[in-house]
Amino acid sequence: MVDIIEKKRDGESITKEEISFFVDGYTAGTIPDYQASALLMAIYFKGMTAEEQGDLTMAMVDSGDQIDLSGIKGIKVDKHSTGGVGDTTTLILVPLVAACGVPVAKMSGRGLGHTGGTLDKLEAIEGFHIELTQKQFVNQVNDLKLAVIGQSGNLTPADKKLYSLRDVTATVDSIPLIASSIMSKKIAAGADAIVLDVKAGDGAFMKTVEDAEALAQAMVSIGRQVGRNTMAVISDMSQPLGYAIGNALEVKEAIETLGGNGPEDLTELCLVLGSKMVVAGGKAETIEEARALLEKVIEDRSALALFGELIDAQGGDSKIIHDTSLLPSATFKINVPALSTGYIAKMEADEIGVAAMVLGAGRETKDDDIDLAVGIMLSKKIGDFVKEGETIAVIHSNKDDVSKSIKIIQKHIHIAKDPQEKPELILRMITE
Amino acid sequence: MVDIIEKKRDGESITKEEISFFVDGYTAGTIPDYQASALLMAIYFKGMTAEEQGDLTMAMVDSGDQIDLSGIKGIKVDKHSTGGVGDTTTLILVPLVAACGVPVAKMSGRGLGHTGGTLDKLEAIEGFHIELTQKQFVNQVNDLKLAVIGQSGNLTPADKKLYSLRDVTATVDSIPLIASSIMSKKIAAGADAIVLDVKAGDGAFMKTVEDAEALAQAMVSIGRQVGRNTMAVISDMSQPLGYAIGNALEVKEAIETLGGNGPEDLTELCLVLGSKMVVAGGKAETIEEARALLEKVIEDRSALALFGELIDAQGGDSKIIHDTSLLPSATFKINVPALSTGYIAKMEADEIGVAAMVLGAGRETKDDDIDLAVGIMLSKKIGDFVKEGETIAVIHSNKDDVSKSIKIIQKHIHIAKDPQEKPELILRMITE
Repeated sequence: MVDIIEKKRDGESITKEEISFFVDGYTAGTIPDYQASALLMAIYFKGMTAEEQGDLTMAMVDSGDQIDLSGIKGIKVDKHSTGGVGDTTTLILVPLVAACGVPVAKMSGRGLGHTGGTLDKLEAIEGFHIELTQKQFVNQVNDLKLAVIGQSGNLTPADKKLYSLRDVTATVDSIPLIASSIMSKKIAAGADAIVLDVKAGDGAFMKTVEDAEALAQAMVSIGRQVGRNTMAVISDMSQPLGYAIGNALEVKEAIETLGGNGPEDLTELCLVLGSKMVVAGGKAETIEEARALLEKVIEDRSALALFGELIDAQGGDSKIIHDTSLLPSATFKINVPALSTGYIAKMEADEIGVAAMVLGAGRETKDDDIDLAVGIMLSKKIGDFVKEGETIAVIHSNKDDVSKSIKIIQKHIHIAKDPQEKPELILRMITE
Repeated sequence: MVDIIEKKRDGESITKEEISFFVDGYTAGTIPDYQASALLMAIYFKGMTAEEQGDLTMAMVDSGDQIDLSGIKGIKVDKHSTGGVGDTTTLILVPLVAACGVPVAKMSGRGLGHTGGTLDKLEAIEGFHIELTQKQFVNQVNDLKLAVIGQSGNLTPADKKLYSLRDVTATVDSIPLIASSIMSKKIAAGADAIVLDVKAGDGAFMKTVEDAEALAQAMVSIGRQVGRNTMAVISDMSQPLGYAIGNALEVKEAIETLGGNGPEDLTELCLVLGSKMVVAGGKAETIEEARALLEKVIEDRSALALFGELIDAQGGDSKIIHDTSLLPSATFKINVPALSTGYIAKMEADEIGVAAMVLGAGRETKDDDIDLAVGIMLSKKIGDFVKEGETIAVIHSNKDDVSKSIKIIQKHIHIAKDPQEKPELILRMITE
C-alpha cells in the first residue's frame, strides 16, 4: 500500500490491480484509514487518469451488491443531478420520459440539504410508499414503465466508507473522487445509460462553469471507460430552478410542469434532459425527435396521467394531480416585500435554500424531521422588475415567526437600478 | 482538525495554536491517524513556512520530556549528521571539541543502517557502558567536559508517533517534516547550539546537493526561529567517508584521526565541523582561531588523551587508544581485487554499505544482532589509480564465504580508463 501511495504522490498512474487492492482492502478493513486518507490526499493533488477513474468506479461497484434490472425490457436510463435549490427535475422526468416508452426504474434517496430528496417529496403525497421488493419493482416497471424506490441492499459500501473518510480529511473537493463516487452509485443501481445534470453557480457544489465542466467531463469519461452511455448537461444554478423550494410546493410545481403550466426554466431543463434520456433509451433517433415526443406527452396529458398511475401503483392518492390543494399546506403564508425598486440582479440560491431550511423544509443531519408543507415560493426571477414593497417571495410556514427567513431572502435577492439580463439556463453539453 | 487540513491543503499557513492542537491531540490520541496522515500528505505537497516549522518543532519538543543540561557550565553544542556510510565523525568530534573546552553532553542512538550507531561503536571498546544517571551525566561533563549516554526518558513522543505514521503513508520525504523531526530531537536533548552535517550524494538520504541544501536551510531556519544557534555544512557522500566501514574498524580509524594519522577527508570534515562547534561554544572568535585550536589538541595528543579519559570514566579499557589491536577483530581478512586497470571513478557508498551490512556490521531491524568486528576497509578512493588484480578493499568477516560482499564491492566501485577528479568534500556552508 505504501508503494501505491508513493506512486500516486509522485504523479504516476496506479493500475487496475492496485486500485482493486486498495478498494477491496479498505472495504474489508485490512488497509487502515490512515493509508487510505494519505492516498486520497495524494489523489486530491495529483488527480487520476480517465482509466484510473473508471477502475476506481468499477472497484467500488464491485465492493457491494448490484441491482439486477435485467428483468426489465429495454434500455434503462438513469438521471443524476449534482444538486441545487428548487430542483424538481427528477419528479417531472420520471413520468415524462416513461410516457415516451423509456423504462424508468428509479432508485432515489432522502439526503441532506435545503429540502428533502425525491423520496421525501413523493411522501408529501398521502399514502405514497417507496418500499417495493426487487420483484415488485421490476414488475411495476415492466407494467407501467416507471417505479420509484428507496435505496435498498448494500450498494457501493466502499464508496460509503471512503466518503465518510473524505468528509473528515478535507478530501471531498476532488473531481476524480466525486466523479467516481457518483458514477459507482448509478452503475450499481443498474443503469445502462446515464444522463447527468451538473449544476454550476452559487447554489451548486460547483461554483464555476469550468469546475462543473471538469466534473461533467470526468463522469462522461468514466462512462465511456466502463461501457455505459453517459452524457452531461451543465445547467445554471445562479438562482433557484423554478419558483418552488420546499417538498409539497415542489410536487405542486412538478404537476404543473407535467401539465404544461410549469415555470419556463424548469420546463426547458426537463425537455433538454428528457430529450437526452429518450434518445439514450432508444425511443428517438435525434434530440429534435425526442423533444417533439416529450412535448406531445405533455400536451396530451399522458405524462401527467402516468404520474397518476405511478401514485396509484405505490399506494398514494392520485387525485392530487387534479387538485394540488390536497397536498400538505402550511398554516401561514407570509409575503416578503422588496426593499427597493429595480431589477432582480442576483438571487443567491444557496442562501435562499438556507431560508427554506430554517423553516424546516430540509435536514441538516440524518435524524432531523422534515416539515413537508413548508418552503418558499419565489415571485420573481433574475431580470424581473420589482417595486419597493412588492412581494418578491411568499414564505409557507407552520411557525408564525419567520423573521429570520425574511431577512435572509431580502439580503440575498439583490435588486439593481439598471435592467438585468436573464442568465443562460443551459451552459454546456458534454457528450464525450 | 478538518479546517486545519483544508487550510494546509489550500496552501495557507497554519498557526502556532493550530499546530499545537494537532500535535497535542495526535500524541494524546484524540486526533485519529487518518486525519494526521491527510495533513502530512498536504504538508508534503504544500510545504511549511519557517515559522510553521519552528512551531511544529517546539510542539514536538513540548510533547515529552526535555533533558535538563542547565547544571553544565558553558554553551552546550550538539552535532548531528544526516547519516552516511563510514561516518565516524561523532566519535572523533566528541573528544576533539571537548579538548578545546567546549562541554559535550552527547546523547546518542543505535539506529538502523549499514553499521551500528555511535553507541554500538563505543561498545566495541571492552567494558564501555552508556548507562549514566542524569546526575552522573551532568557531573561527568562538568568534570571531564564530555560524556556519552544512550537515549533515556520519553523524548519527543509526538515525533516518534508521527514518524511511524509517515513511514507507512509515503510522507517521509518531506523536507519540513524531516527538518522539524531532527531539530525537535536535538532541542529536547538540551542543545544550546547545533552544528549540522548534511550529507549529499549516493550514500546519503539526500541524493543531490540541492536537496541537501534545502534540508540544511530548513533546519537552520528552524534554529533561528526557536532561538538555537544553528549552522550546517553540506558534505560529500558520493563515496564513503574515510576508509573504514564497520564498528570496531571505525573506532580504530577515529583513534588514528584523533592522533593526527587519519584519512584526509575524515580529518578535514572533523576540522570543519569542529571549528564551527568551538566557535558556537564560545571558545574561539573566528573559524581560523578555532581550527588552530583543534589542530593543536590533535598535535599535542590532548584530544586523544581526553578520549582515553572518557573511556576510563565510562568503564572501558583505555589502553585501546595506544593499542588498537585490543579491539574486536574478525577471523577472516579477504582482499577484494580490482577487475580492471584504471582510475576509481565512482564508489557507490550506499551499495558498499550494503556489502558491510551483509557481513553483519549493521542491523535491518531493531532486534538484529551486530557483529562489531566485521566490516570493510577500503584501499582506494575516487581518483586513485589501480591495477587489475590489485586490492581495492579488504573484507573483515567472521564467515569464510564473502562472495556476496565481494561481488557488491566489485560491481559498485567503478574503474575508468581516464584520470578522475577527486570530489569536493565540503559542498556548501549554511549559516543563516
